[in-house]
Amino acid sequence: MSKFIISILSIALLLCICYISYNELVIIPKIKQNSVLENILNRKSVRNYVKGKEVTDEQIEKILKAGMAAPSARNLQPWELIVIKDRKTLDTLAQKSPYGKMLSDASLAIVVAGNLNTEGVSDFWIQDTSAVTENILLEVESLGLGAVWIGGYPREDRANMIKETLKLPQNIEPLNIISIGYPTGKDKPKDKWNPKKIHYDKW
Amino acid sequence: MSKFIISILSIALLLCICYISYNELVIIPKIKQNSVLENILNRKSVRNYVKGKEVTDEQIEKILKAGMAAPSARNLQPWELIVIKDRKTLDTLAQKSPYGKMLSDASLAIVVAGNLNTEGVSDFWIQDTSAVTENILLEVESLGLGAVWIGGYPREDRANMIKETLKLPQNIEPLNIISIGYPTGKDKPKDKWNPKKIHYDKW
Repeated sequence: MSKFIISILSIALLLCICYISYNELVIIPKIKQNSVLENILNRKSVRNYVKGKEVTDEQIEKILKAGMAAPSARNLQPWELIVIKDRKTLDTLAQKSPYGKMLSDASLAIVVAGNLNTEGVSDFWIQDTSAVTENILLEVESLGLGAVWIGGYPREDRANMIKETLKLPQNIEPLNIISIGYPTGKDKPKDKWNPKKIHYDKW
Repeated sequence: MSKFIISILSIALLLCICYISYNELVIIPKIKQNSVLENILNRKSVRNYVKGKEVTDEQIEKILKAGMAAPSARNLQPWELIVIKDRKTLDTLAQKSPYGKMLSDASLAIVVAGNLNTEGVSDFWIQDTSAVTENILLEVESLGLGAVWIGGYPREDRANMIKETLKLPQNIEPLNIISIGYPTGKDKPKDKWNPKKIHYDKW
């Protein structure tokens, strides 16, 4: 009888060890790879938030780190990031933004801006700060939070409103306001896959 | 003696089961979350490729899916993607691009362009196609490939060169050429974290 139990236990243990090894060597690397695409496809514009829930400083640091890891033309990094947690400022931006009403429910906002005093800066600052923004949106999604990109520059009225509200110097050009909060679950990702937009080798 | 063996085996089995459960419930969700930031921080401009190694159609589809999942102003999706695998075209682009010499070693390239005939299109197409580009760069990194963003628009000479080489219609404005290949390992990510670029609530 005990020989039988020993055999069963040994086989079970061996199976467990095989499973763990397979997991570590095959499954987890695959999960790591797939989770990047999964996260990109799950990202959506989140405009509905659970009110009053705080985003921690640790989460904010991860979001900012993601933003600053963006590429930039000639590695000039011509960006500045303004984190807005002050309720009154968020409410003012909500009131004054034609497409920013959701800011009144947001836990925080980040303004991504170009610093036009950066040495050697060119028009590519728009591309650079857009890459910063996309990194931020993707990291927000991965943390279980939700965000929406509210356009600023080149709409002069919107950019000026942000500049005035945040007392930005003339050389700081706000590309957008990113509104961030805990999603209610109402906003869903869109399937935007469209093979008609793919071309091969030439038009 | 056999009682002792049974006890040892049972404990080992129990530990394995605990490990597997902990893995599934805690470690793997954490890995999924962290791998997004890890991938963002690991992305770098890769200019050195292992020559002659092919990127599969399955990999290319994942890269294109990531690109098209980008957000866009008013969800207009004003983008077109031109995939270049033809060696002669890659070599022509390498020759004619002031910063695109690495294209002669690349496995493929993707040109991200704005379609200025998109109904309702505005200047925001630059931001939209930049977000497409960043998604592509991140997915490339996650597949173990490497890429570099070679600027086109708004440099007229570079944009015109791309237009002529690929026979793009006048309304198709190339934002960039993304050169893609298998990294040799020479290119490393930069640490761009800079707390001086973070501001709170106002300037």
